[in-house]
Amino acid sequence: MALDLKPLADRVIVLPAAAEEKTKSGIIIPDTAKEKPQRGEVVAVGEGKISDQGVLVKSQLKVGDQVLYGKYAGTEISLDGADYLIMRESDILAVL
Amino acid sequence: MALDLKPLADRVIVLPAAAEEKTKSGIIIPDTAKEKPQRGEVVAVGEGKISDQGVLVKSQLKVGDQVLYGKYAGTEISLDGADYLIMRESDILAVL
Amino acid sequence: MALDLKPLADRVIVLPAAAEEKTKSGIIIPDTAKEKPQRGEVVAVGEGKISDQGVLVKSQLKVGDQVLYGKYAGTEISLDGADYLIMRESDILAVL
Amino acid sequence: MALDLKPLADRVIVLPAAAEEKTKSGIIIPDTAKEKPQRGEVVAVGEGKISDQGVLVKSQLKVGDQVLYGKYAGTEISLDGADYLIMRESDILAVL
Amino acid sequence: MALDLKPLADRVIVLPAAAEEKTKSGIIIPDTAKEKPQRGEVVAVGEGKISDQGVLVKSQLKVGDQVLYGKYAGTEISLDGADYLIMRESDILAVL
Amino acid sequence: MALDLKPLADRVIVLPAAAEEKTKSGIIIPDTAKEKPQRGEVVAVGEGKISDQGVLVKSQLKVGDQVLYGKYAGTEISLDGADYLIMRESDILAVL
Amino acid sequence: MALDLKPLADRVIVLPAAAEEKTKSGIIIPDTAKEKPQRGEVVAVGEGKISDQGVLVKSQLKVGDQVLYGKYAGTEISLDGADYLIMRESDILAVL
Repeated sequence: MALDLKPLADRVIVLPAAAEEKTKSGIIIPDTAKEKPQRGEVVAVGEGKISDQGVLVKSQLKVGDQVLYGKYAGTEISLDGADYLIMRESDILAVL
Repeated sequence: MALDLKPLADRVIVLPAAAEEKTKSGIIIPDTAKEKPQRGEVVAVGEGKISDQGVLVKSQLKVGDQVLYGKYAGTEISLDGADYLIMRESDILAVL
Repeated sequence: MALDLKPLADRVIVLPAAAEEKTKSGIIIPDTAKEKPQRGEVVAVGEGKISDQGVLVKSQLKVGDQVLYGKYAGTEISLDGADYLIMRESDILAVL
Repeated sequence: MALDLKPLADRVIVLPAAAEEKTKSGIIIPDTAKEKPQRGEVVAVGEGKISDQGVLVKSQLKVGDQVLYGKYAGTEISLDGADYLIMRESDILAVL
Repeated sequence: MALDLKPLADRVIVLPAAAEEKTKSGIIIPDTAKEKPQRGEVVAVGEGKISDQGVLVKSQLKVGDQVLYGKYAGTEISLDGADYLIMRESDILAVL
Repeated sequence: MALDLKPLADRVIVLPAAAEEKTKSGIIIPDTAKEKPQRGEVVAVGEGKISDQGVLVKSQLKVGDQVLYGKYAGTEISLDGADYLIMRESDILAVL
Repeated sequence: MALDLKPLADRVIVLPAAAEEKTKSGIIIPDTAKEKPQRGEVVAVGEGKISDQGVLVKSQLKVGDQVLYGKYAGTEISLDGADYLIMRESDILAVL
């Protein structure tokens, strides 16, 4: 799934995975108690950061990567009814 | 729409999109409750940042770009009756 | 209008435009309520910043430029009865 | 023990050693009093940090290293029922 | 007037101009109300800052320069009964 | 005395000197009042810091050096019953 | 007077000048009221700072220099009954 939105510099746009609505023991979690997901899919990648030396440092991520990110990373944006997170590549912890 | 105002270095001037005056369900929002828009159009672009090595790092934006920016980005300026935001390119999150 | 005062490094001296003494509807504003102007004229420009590499990064401004600057930018100095602002070039937002 | 999860840049993933459940004198420590372990095993290593000069600075660690790390280092992640810590290489103090 | 004291690196020593003891209208200002002067004379200049590249960035000031400096710039030192200010060259705003 | 523990980067491991248990006048100091020692012996040295240019900046210290360090420097680690401090080389003030 | 203690990197060791025990008018100052001296003699100089480029930036000071330093500069160390200050060269303001 790609997105018609081009992040600038070293930013990426992530579609957060839906938060699990059941605990492991099967109890349904009310909406206010759901833990914010930290897993998502990269839907857009910026061109990379241009360093002081004029070197373009490209992103190590690509569209479709499943990623883990810090709990409070990024800025929420709403686009066509869906909620995305736009964050710097350095906020991405790992690729699954 | 261009603007007769030259931002310095890596700054851009953005004309914020008009805040929506209705919620999705059609309720009219009173002026004080309107959410500040985070979408706008670039109306002027600076020449770029000159790094310590004397390298000119040009902007990746151009006049007419529709952009998303952080909620508290930039400084408000009033020109000929219209309100603009002047911000650094790094405050621009993405190009639509 | 030039000034017999040489700012150091990447500093410029700005003569703030007189604050408007009337609101748009013609009401005279008492002195304490006048908004501090954010527009002014460059009256002196420093030679530029010498970077760590020994490169002289020259100012992009020249004497006579009409500029916009942030509300709390610069240090006020009094010279021959007039009040000026001395600020770094990076505090200048745009050239009119 | 390796892990199917690729940390980005200069990050590593560490499986913390189980906290000791007995004190030296043999008293069983209740769960809430157990000191968080500071010793663990590296289970995944990122490719390294790309510096401003475009130089890739590789990690000095490898999968399987027994490491010591600061008490509050890293972000906890849960994967397949096990708890890991993902941290920057600079949070690792020493290799055993 | 020179001074037998060598400031290190990019520091300069300034002899503050005597604070005016009368207001413009001729009222004598008691000692506690005198505004700290922001104008002074350079009496000693350091050799300059050695940058990370090993480049010596020389001072743009020389002994005898009349300078303006920020209100709280520098450290006060007492020498042979006179009070001087020792400050970094970057604290000097302009040369008269 | 060496140690089977390899500190990373520009870190060193120090065995603090035993705190003096008597004051100069011969009074025995109870354990809680003993001043934390600031003197110790280097027992392990990291390979050095890799700078942004990819240059390895080696440590100026070696195993066996008697060093002075700041009062709150380093992280305490327990190994085989002894307490060590692991700190960055920049926390070491001087070599005796 | 030299000292058998080698400061690391860009540090120097200073023997503070004895605080004056009399005011100018001859009043003896009780110990608690004595102003901490800001003048002292350099008794040991480190080899210098190694920059990111691997360049050794040597100290501009030498043993025996009479120096002025900021009021709260450095860390106090006790050696053979005398109290010294160990500080970075950048804390030294000037050489007398």
